[in-house]
Amino acid sequence: MCVLGLGLIGGSLMRAAAAAGRTVYGYNRSAQGAEAATADGFDATTDLHRTLQRAESQHALIVIAVPMPAVGQLVDAIAATAPTCPLTDVISVKGAVLADIDRAGLLANYVGGHPMTGTAFSGWTAGDAGLFTGTPWVVSVDDHVDPAVWAAVAELALDCGAFVVPARADEHDAAAAAISHLPHLAAEAIAATAASTPLAYALAAGSFRDGTRVAATAPDLVRAMCEANAEDLVVMLDRALELLNQARSSLAEHRSVQALVEAGYAGRTAYDAFDRPGIESVTVGADGWRDALAAAGRAGGVIRSALPVLGSPR
Amino acid sequence: MCVLGLGLIGGSLMRAAAAAGRTVYGYNRSAQGAEAATADGFDATTDLHRTLQRAESQHALIVIAVPMPAVGQLVDAIAATAPTCPLTDVISVKGAVLADIDRAGLLANYVGGHPMTGTAFSGWTAGDAGLFTGTPWVVSVDDHVDPAVWAAVAELALDCGAFVVPARADEHDAAAAAISHLPHLAAEAIAATAASTPLAYALAAGSFRDGTRVAATAPDLVRAMCEANAEDLVVMLDRALELLNQARSSLAEHRSVQALVEAGYAGRTAYDAFDRPGIESVTVGADGWRDALAAAGRAGGVIRSALPVLGSPR
Repeated sequence: MCVLGLGLIGGSLMRAAAAAGRTVYGYNRSAQGAEAATADGFDATTDLHRTLQRAESQHALIVIAVPMPAVGQLVDAIAATAPTCPLTDVISVKGAVLADIDRAGLLANYVGGHPMTGTAFSGWTAGDAGLFTGTPWVVSVDDHVDPAVWAAVAELALDCGAFVVPARADEHDAAAAAISHLPHLAAEAIAATAASTPLAYALAAGSFRDGTRVAATAPDLVRAMCEANAEDLVVMLDRALELLNQARSSLAEHRSVQALVEAGYAGRTAYDAFDRPGIESVTVGADGWRDALAAAGRAGGVIRSALPVLGSPR
Repeated sequence: MCVLGLGLIGGSLMRAAAAAGRTVYGYNRSAQGAEAATADGFDATTDLHRTLQRAESQHALIVIAVPMPAVGQLVDAIAATAPTCPLTDVISVKGAVLADIDRAGLLANYVGGHPMTGTAFSGWTAGDAGLFTGTPWVVSVDDHVDPAVWAAVAELALDCGAFVVPARADEHDAAAAAISHLPHLAAEAIAATAASTPLAYALAAGSFRDGTRVAATAPDLVRAMCEANAEDLVVMLDRALELLNQARSSLAEHRSVQALVEAGYAGRTAYDAFDRPGIESVTVGADGWRDALAAAGRAGGVIRSALPVLGSPR
């Protein structure tokens, strides 16, 4: 398999795939990242064209692991040099990647992916083979997806220690706006509000530390994911802003903030009690398999071991 | 010393004070809490009147550790039965407590306190002698505070393993609104926005988990602290809402959220780099000591070992 982009996620994926016994090679735009990977014993280069020729000759699974703003150009290079390879990605928005893939005519090869993991650090040196262990990895089940490519991408996620959450690209993006992009912007707003107040820093305890943790993420990464999912994020921001504006009015009139506090408590308690049910009874490629997986994912279900694939021996 | 209210904070304080070698007894309104404390070997009762008589006869330091809505009534009982005891509290807003104390004529005995710690749990059984270790404990330096009472309260905080942050009540409340009450409401809004979406729960990873952690706090406690600090919280909410509204407009027009993201990143990075300087050169009771401590606290300074007190041997 072939990883394009060896930053935090791509670099961790290269390590995790190798640890799982896979043959893996990669490309990185900057020489620094490629050299660091090579120094650590991995097969990495800055030559995109030769990497894609190699992938095409082996019909290797290609994983796009560059930041969202670089996807368009990379997809054009794949279409030119490796047009038949099965293709996935690890980018935190799915609709925007899907649009680039479609424009390049690669839809038939592509199954979107999104490992829901990360740290506040970036680059090859921040990578970790264990980054995906026990974390959700979305594998998309849009109408166009091919069963064999889907099964290959799901197998990669499972090999890396993740569990698979099947979801349509649009449903993924709405959910990610709620549980990732909104929390990132809220963390930025809290951190910015307390900025330049030493007394506030001296007093800061758990609620500030945890509530602003992700504000330490590299600004470019936060911008890339929020801006690429603008439409869904606006919907979630509007919900949150409505709740906060109501609380603000209540406080200004010395009334209660019970409505917000109880809704938040209910949401968090339901999350704490939520136990992702396992999906086991769907055969990939069977009639209606995409809709069946999308429905199971919508209900919070996850895949913890490889599903049967129609026409393949188990 | 005497602790009134044996919930998470009061119960932890009783344990920590006893562990530091202090003689400590307490009162709890519910028999369940008092019995649980007694069963654990502590001196606790549900008889408020006798507890206060005992404190008055010994000139014991009284610590008010009941929820904010119960403070008014308790302060009246203290004024009636223990009117000469030195007095502090552990409540998360200082202006509202100060108003109750002033109304009851107890200002001369009182130095406000606020340990910046907690968990999402409550009640005697949630208590922990180590809850205060290495955490900030505000001891107020308003114009009325008496040097001897101030030194006694600071000593209690240090005995419990905390470090002391000196602050005026109004400055404490503004800072607490920014680093505690605002993060609580933001966590509630994020948790409420994702509520009832199983796919979102299945996908939720670090940013949601950390960003909503404090939404698991008992709703009554969150309401009590936010509603008692309404005026300062509205100011901080307005700052955060302005930032989020600007980001919302930018996203809706497919423009960048760079302004918010970079301000948040700068705020969090400054917090991570912030190293609370030690305050060592102020003598409690000397000319201008309150202003000197308030200024040092405003600059982010903290007290890690007892300061000299004018007229006391070291």
